[in-house]
Amino acid sequence: MNEPLNHQWLLTTRPVGMVKRSDFTYTATPMPEPGEGQILLRTKYISLDPAMRGWMNDARSYVPPVGLGEVMRAIAVGEVVASKHPEWHEGDTATGMLGLQEYAVLDAKAANKVDAKLAPLPLYLSALGMPGLTAYFGLLDVGAPQPGQTVVVSAASGAVGALVGQIARIKGCRAVGLAGGAAKCRYVKEELGFDAVIDYKSEDVGAALSAHCPKGIDVYFDNVGGDILDAALARLARHARVIICGAISQYNNTGAFAGPKNYLSLLVQHARMEGFVVFDYAKRYPEGLAAMAGWLRDGSLKSKEDIVEGLETFPETLVKLFTGENFGKLILKV
Amino acid sequence: MNEPLNHQWLLTTRPVGMVKRSDFTYTATPMPEPGEGQILLRTKYISLDPAMRGWMNDARSYVPPVGLGEVMRAIAVGEVVASKHPEWHEGDTATGMLGLQEYAVLDAKAANKVDAKLAPLPLYLSALGMPGLTAYFGLLDVGAPQPGQTVVVSAASGAVGALVGQIARIKGCRAVGLAGGAAKCRYVKEELGFDAVIDYKSEDVGAALSAHCPKGIDVYFDNVGGDILDAALARLARHARVIICGAISQYNNTGAFAGPKNYLSLLVQHARMEGFVVFDYAKRYPEGLAAMAGWLRDGSLKSKEDIVEGLETFPETLVKLFTGENFGKLILKV
Repeated sequence: MNEPLNHQWLLTTRPVGMVKRSDFTYTATPMPEPGEGQILLRTKYISLDPAMRGWMNDARSYVPPVGLGEVMRAIAVGEVVASKHPEWHEGDTATGMLGLQEYAVLDAKAANKVDAKLAPLPLYLSALGMPGLTAYFGLLDVGAPQPGQTVVVSAASGAVGALVGQIARIKGCRAVGLAGGAAKCRYVKEELGFDAVIDYKSEDVGAALSAHCPKGIDVYFDNVGGDILDAALARLARHARVIICGAISQYNNTGAFAGPKNYLSLLVQHARMEGFVVFDYAKRYPEGLAAMAGWLRDGSLKSKEDIVEGLETFPETLVKLFTGENFGKLILKV
Repeated sequence: MNEPLNHQWLLTTRPVGMVKRSDFTYTATPMPEPGEGQILLRTKYISLDPAMRGWMNDARSYVPPVGLGEVMRAIAVGEVVASKHPEWHEGDTATGMLGLQEYAVLDAKAANKVDAKLAPLPLYLSALGMPGLTAYFGLLDVGAPQPGQTVVVSAASGAVGALVGQIARIKGCRAVGLAGGAAKCRYVKEELGFDAVIDYKSEDVGAALSAHCPKGIDVYFDNVGGDILDAALARLARHARVIICGAISQYNNTGAFAGPKNYLSLLVQHARMEGFVVFDYAKRYPEGLAAMAGWLRDGSLKSKEDIVEGLETFPETLVKLFTGENFGKLILKV
């Protein structure tokens, strides 16, 4: 009767429009036990990402959708509490697809060991995790910016965008960010050192892009889609690269998904628009993580986490991503 | 009083929606005379191209719009009737931006000499002209198809599309074309040798693409935009390339330009969408023309021209491009 329980969030309805608490069920099951070659982890921090909204839809994508009645998928960092694998020991820390639950069993090979002494654990869900790798490979590999070029990034105070602009600066580019509201814009310009920032909530985005990118946009890293993508497309430089990383403005649409009306700018400017999924770079993660860790260490890169406490707050906390209420990488502390 | 006149079409109104006769003025001026270093050409065949619709709009593009009151811009092939340049002689034939008029003066360096003995003159506006170069560089350079891959092309019986599919076959790819109506589809499959053809006027394009591209689309060469582009985007293979060559379905829209709603397929499939303008390949034209000429000679490539007689028919003949009434490269014989 006193067995510890494993609280978890199940996806029980496919959301229509914005996600809401009633799309999920908060429940408790008996503690799972690791089998041979497996480890049991206690979840410490859970990454809340825009991509989760896509995983809830019954649609073809780069991963299958979360099944109804299944634990909601999430990347998290946890501590090993039991191990049936020789290379893993109690107290080790790891990232992996732990899901929205207090305890998870993983195959040892699906867990990535991280060192809690080298960096605070939340950083492994931020600059030293998927957002960091997404910014690194998306900007440098897909975008291929050259020194002196103009790099524009949307959601510039967000987990990925903040890193994209800083990496652009490290690589000798001019970084222009878009963010919503005075506080975020101040942070992007003053704390992160972007060359310019545009408040999309109070400024005419098109006019501001024209003003801050007098020679056009060489690289546009898009996290938002919609009108901002169109405004950027209309201002591409010759041979520009548009990196499609996400489209957060569209994920909770119940109406038609907005396609980029100005896509023929690709023709006129001999430009390209390219998408990517960070998982495709798995073999090169060590390269990306080494670079990010080096820049964090020498102070040329800053990372900001927005940590909300309480597994039970999950639905409302996730919504903050889509309303723009979070400020930095959104993480749920369990 | 008996001086020969130069009949010409001036653009006098910026068209709204479909082009119409009243957007132009048919007029006659005195014969022009070549200055030093110039040649006077009598226009023989005029190329009618979808891109002309864009040149009529007062919008930023890869070339400035045609000014109101100016001769409508067009590529044509003509015969030299007077020369003030040592390398050009009466009877020489050349392509260039002669415009929609009977006679034009060109700087000698803006004229490309073509040999009327090697090929019929209309071919220099078709497989051995801009459509040929567009198909060649667009497919091979931007699309980079590999042997065994599936190449889909819209407007497959059109000037560019017909060549794209044939070049794809020459390069060992599977070619799937989209065309409108039974006659065009029969031509694409039986005469041009495409592996499959889809009649977009009578078939469910999405279902047909799924059926004919069971492993997805590796290269999609888009001439049309709109719903067909969206259907192709939804069926991309991993690392697919989408070549944006045109968007003829949208050029005469008076409502909102339709952006590709399914563009996030680029993200999911790590694919790219890239535009180009053939003029960017000017330095490599000899390579492209040599390849096309070789394939025409050895019979692996067929070219079809739809030649309409009479400069005075220009507005109505141009409209055929947008209604799909032409069958092959549309050319006006003067």
